[in-house]
Amino acid sequence: MAQLSTCLPLTKESTLKAHELIKPQFHPTPVLTSRTLNEMASTPRAWQKGDRQPAKPVIRLWFKCENLQRIGAFKARGAFHAIERLKQDPSFIESGGMEKGVVGFSAGNHAQALALAAKESGIPAYIVMPDITRLNKIAATKGYGANVIGARLVPPFNHPDVILGQTTAGLELQEQADNLDAIIASCSGGGLLAGTALSCEKTSIRVFGAEPEFEGADDCRRGFLSGERITSVNTNTIADGLIGVVGEIPWSVIYVRKLVDGMFAVSEEQILEATRLIFERLKMVVEPAAAVTLAVVLYNEEFRQMVEKEAGDKGWDLGLILSGGNVSAEGLAKLFA
Amino acid sequence: MAQLSTCLPLTKESTLKAHELIKPQFHPTPVLTSRTLNEMASTPRAWQKGDRQPAKPVIRLWFKCENLQRIGAFKARGAFHAIERLKQDPSFIESGGMEKGVVGFSAGNHAQALALAAKESGIPAYIVMPDITRLNKIAATKGYGANVIGARLVPPFNHPDVILGQTTAGLELQEQADNLDAIIASCSGGGLLAGTALSCEKTSIRVFGAEPEFEGADDCRRGFLSGERITSVNTNTIADGLIGVVGEIPWSVIYVRKLVDGMFAVSEEQILEATRLIFERLKMVVEPAAAVTLAVVLYNEEFRQMVEKEAGDKGWDLGLILSGGNVSAEGLAKLFA
Repeated sequence: MAQLSTCLPLTKESTLKAHELIKPQFHPTPVLTSRTLNEMASTPRAWQKGDRQPAKPVIRLWFKCENLQRIGAFKARGAFHAIERLKQDPSFIESGGMEKGVVGFSAGNHAQALALAAKESGIPAYIVMPDITRLNKIAATKGYGANVIGARLVPPFNHPDVILGQTTAGLELQEQADNLDAIIASCSGGGLLAGTALSCEKTSIRVFGAEPEFEGADDCRRGFLSGERITSVNTNTIADGLIGVVGEIPWSVIYVRKLVDGMFAVSEEQILEATRLIFERLKMVVEPAAAVTLAVVLYNEEFRQMVEKEAGDKGWDLGLILSGGNVSAEGLAKLFA
Repeated sequence: MAQLSTCLPLTKESTLKAHELIKPQFHPTPVLTSRTLNEMASTPRAWQKGDRQPAKPVIRLWFKCENLQRIGAFKARGAFHAIERLKQDPSFIESGGMEKGVVGFSAGNHAQALALAAKESGIPAYIVMPDITRLNKIAATKGYGANVIGARLVPPFNHPDVILGQTTAGLELQEQADNLDAIIASCSGGGLLAGTALSCEKTSIRVFGAEPEFEGADDCRRGFLSGERITSVNTNTIADGLIGVVGEIPWSVIYVRKLVDGMFAVSEEQILEATRLIFERLKMVVEPAAAVTLAVVLYNEEFRQMVEKEAGDKGWDLGLILSGGNVSAEGLAKLFA
């Protein structure tokens, strides 16, 4: 990967440069709206015995469809940006990097994203995909295998070039939906959330993060509250794209620089219901990880009280980044069986 | 419904007027492309023992996403157009039609489309939704019920105002995807296929229809071959949006005026596989009825031979109208279980 010292600083200006750099390789993903979901978001939850009064927020939703992105997820942005930056890096070129290639380590969408980005630049890619049962073997192999190959590592989120690539989803969304009051993105390693936050720097748009709460998957939210980044989590949430722990560099953007305004978590049941709504109402195939954003908007009373309190009758225009759609027909069938 | 004598003629000019009339109520639905599906469409099928040589067509696909249309299907176009035309009809207004309302009969998307279109114009709507077990009862009730109510019937496809509304999907697609060589649409009652054909009149774009072949569901194709419209079919195809028989007015456009160039049919297995591909590759939720178009393109050798023969290496840019997405999460789960 590009040396950290040669990376662009993580600023709004850099996000624009990143967008320029990768634009030729992407069409903007569409932004969808749904009157039905707007109505649901703006309708108070049924009042249950013992409850405080349910919030009455007014919310208009704008869905940024990164499930329609190349390779089916926003991860393509970061990988393509990282590769483009490498191609401008003399140390990479002079050491024969174009022939030696790049290596990535990922259990998910980053693997496909890197493979595609490298292929389109004619660079060999070596992808290590961990199989739970063979993790040690892979780690061992990697220990010397990477040296033998001599390829550059492209990490899935903990690198400025990857984060700057992810900023471009938020930039596009701001062009496609005028006058947003806020954007909500899901958080795993934090690349997308940090990128979204950077894309909103120096604007009045507030940024929120969404996580599953199951078995402590809301590590970023808990770190946000305690003031200290949590470094290990072991969860089997159905939002299996969100089992990662927020990385140090994303954390520096999200928490240390305070570019994210709040973190919210939701239950497995709420994530499943939001996935169903996106499926049946938006007609979009998304991973449960992408639906966590809508789950917060519809079911997290803390979030809803905040919108009601801050926006009143005027309400909010709220952007949601639907981060990915890589789920098989059988996989989704199992969720809804 | 508007008297047939007051309807616009079924011409290309009328399609433009229809689009003007309903435009304020719709955003254009997006058009998607997929490199993976283009590659699949342009790759010859594996050669099996006893086969003729598989076709080698070159096809680039443009998916018109009517599954993202209001109410989740193209039917909204026809219903809104029919209502707008009624509102311009003095006989409707003077007889108190705005208060008496409209009545529709449909087992599917037309019911929702009419209900919404009427609601937005402040017109009462009476929707008769047949339950297989109660068809006779409903028919009987309808016999005098409609008289009692005194509302206008808005049929799902066999009326020029509805067909002219459906033409607007094809018009938009031609604006969104330049230089299409052909468009393929599915055919049940024939409103969408006839509308698509009208939208392409006086262009060089060829129009094809797609049907399931299961239990004779390919009534339009069979009528096309025999020269006589088939008037009854009883099929349980998984493409349950396509169990209807092509209506007389659509037939006059499709066959009598020869505005459709050919009809093609596919098996249940092929429809299921195409539904899965749209789901996993385009990340779109569609009814199996919508996937019949892609099934023809990928699996009907007759169609593929034709493209190869006519277009050679240059290939075709081919528009596919994804007609609807109204399937529940459980419904799709059952298909893929």
